[in-house]
Amino acid sequence: MDLNNKIEKIGIVFAMKGEALATIHHFNLERINGNYPVELYGNAENKIVVSLNGTCSFTGVDNVGTQAATLNTYVLINEVNPDIVINAGTAGGFAHSGAKIGDVYIGTNRVVYHDRRIPLPKFDEYGIGNYGLINTDYLAKQIGIKQGIISTGNSLDYVDRDLQLMKMSNASLKDMEAASVAWVCQLLNKAFIPIKSVTDMVDGGIPTEVEFKANFNLATKNLNLKLIQLIDFIYQKTMEEIVSPEK
Amino acid sequence: MDLNNKIEKIGIVFAMKGEALATIHHFNLERINGNYPVELYGNAENKIVVSLNGTCSFTGVDNVGTQAATLNTYVLINEVNPDIVINAGTAGGFAHSGAKIGDVYIGTNRVVYHDRRIPLPKFDEYGIGNYGLINTDYLAKQIGIKQGIISTGNSLDYVDRDLQLMKMSNASLKDMEAASVAWVCQLLNKAFIPIKSVTDMVDGGIPTEVEFKANFNLATKNLNLKLIQLIDFIYQKTMEEIVSPEK
Repeated sequence: MDLNNKIEKIGIVFAMKGEALATIHHFNLERINGNYPVELYGNAENKIVVSLNGTCSFTGVDNVGTQAATLNTYVLINEVNPDIVINAGTAGGFAHSGAKIGDVYIGTNRVVYHDRRIPLPKFDEYGIGNYGLINTDYLAKQIGIKQGIISTGNSLDYVDRDLQLMKMSNASLKDMEAASVAWVCQLLNKAFIPIKSVTDMVDGGIPTEVEFKANFNLATKNLNLKLIQLIDFIYQKTMEEIVSPEK
Repeated sequence: MDLNNKIEKIGIVFAMKGEALATIHHFNLERINGNYPVELYGNAENKIVVSLNGTCSFTGVDNVGTQAATLNTYVLINEVNPDIVINAGTAGGFAHSGAKIGDVYIGTNRVVYHDRRIPLPKFDEYGIGNYGLINTDYLAKQIGIKQGIISTGNSLDYVDRDLQLMKMSNASLKDMEAASVAWVCQLLNKAFIPIKSVTDMVDGGIPTEVEFKANFNLATKNLNLKLIQLIDFIYQKTMEEIVSPEK
């Protein structure tokens, strides 16, 4: 993207409808087309579009995880062609890196995987991945949120090997979508920002699913507050103004 | 799909180019369009189309795994609209279920995941998945290949928890793509057949990557022989003729 182009159209990828409702309501978004199972919600001229992974017709739950997020991001970009893609959602945080329940983080540096172990030359590097995002130093200060490296995997819980790989990547957050959204953005040359709120402490000793349920509402409330601030801040600005306005 | 419709157009999803070359050459397929990073190869009127995950521009390796296979299947179906989708590739086999290096299997019963652990009500079931494929009993006899349940994950190796989940699913084969291809086929109402050849024994005690490299050529040779037989057998037949001709 040209640094001088204005951000006129923002696409926001969510996995779960429950995570997205406050943002959909705030911007008065209405359901628009979207190839099944992806659900798109947009405002006038689709300047702001929320894109959901959709629901599983067999179990009725939201299609969480990287396969559905890959499809979601691809459909969003092909149908709406946003100037920038945000991936918003909930995540686990690491107490040792200072995360607390309810904290909202913006991604920094890179997005990686922790559950793609492929011990063959070059495939090992491909498996972890190294997906780009915009420089968020300025945005983090403006919005007043923490920054951290996000590591993605398809499980809500983790096994020891996942944890080792997250530590090797210096991850502050563990989620289930960001790396796949970042990958599709990279393929299709879209600027990318992940924003995640903390439902559970990965290294806190309590089973993820227990904390996830207990803290989902708080984390989602905080996520939407900061996401709306972020959208309002970047809308109609140029990439140069949001990445490094002093330049 | 209507059981009486003829199979006039076959799409074959591969992860790795090296797995697909013999089939591309056998049917004289040439490179046709395909949204990046997916690479499509077709013959006259695209009656037979091979669709590759494409390569990673940073590491140069094939885009293996479920995220790329999701995108590949979606692009193939949208661009080519095949009557049936085959996912062909290599896999790990379980010695305890009788698998041997170089064996070729056709899927049966269902396709599942072993690395999507989501311990929340209904999400646990969603995570494992239960993706359909056509009844392959008749095809397995006609082509002379084994049948087995395929379980998919994003790692070439496995951790103990992966193994427990594969056993719970009665998996005979462990691969890195089939469940995601099956999921997209299910979403878009396409008939699906997975065919996989064994490069390594999951429960054999030798590291996967060592056996994978040693046996890749043998497994790929056998895979392509059986895949070409399968394509020749189903082409121009009706779904009813390949699923249950006596009916």
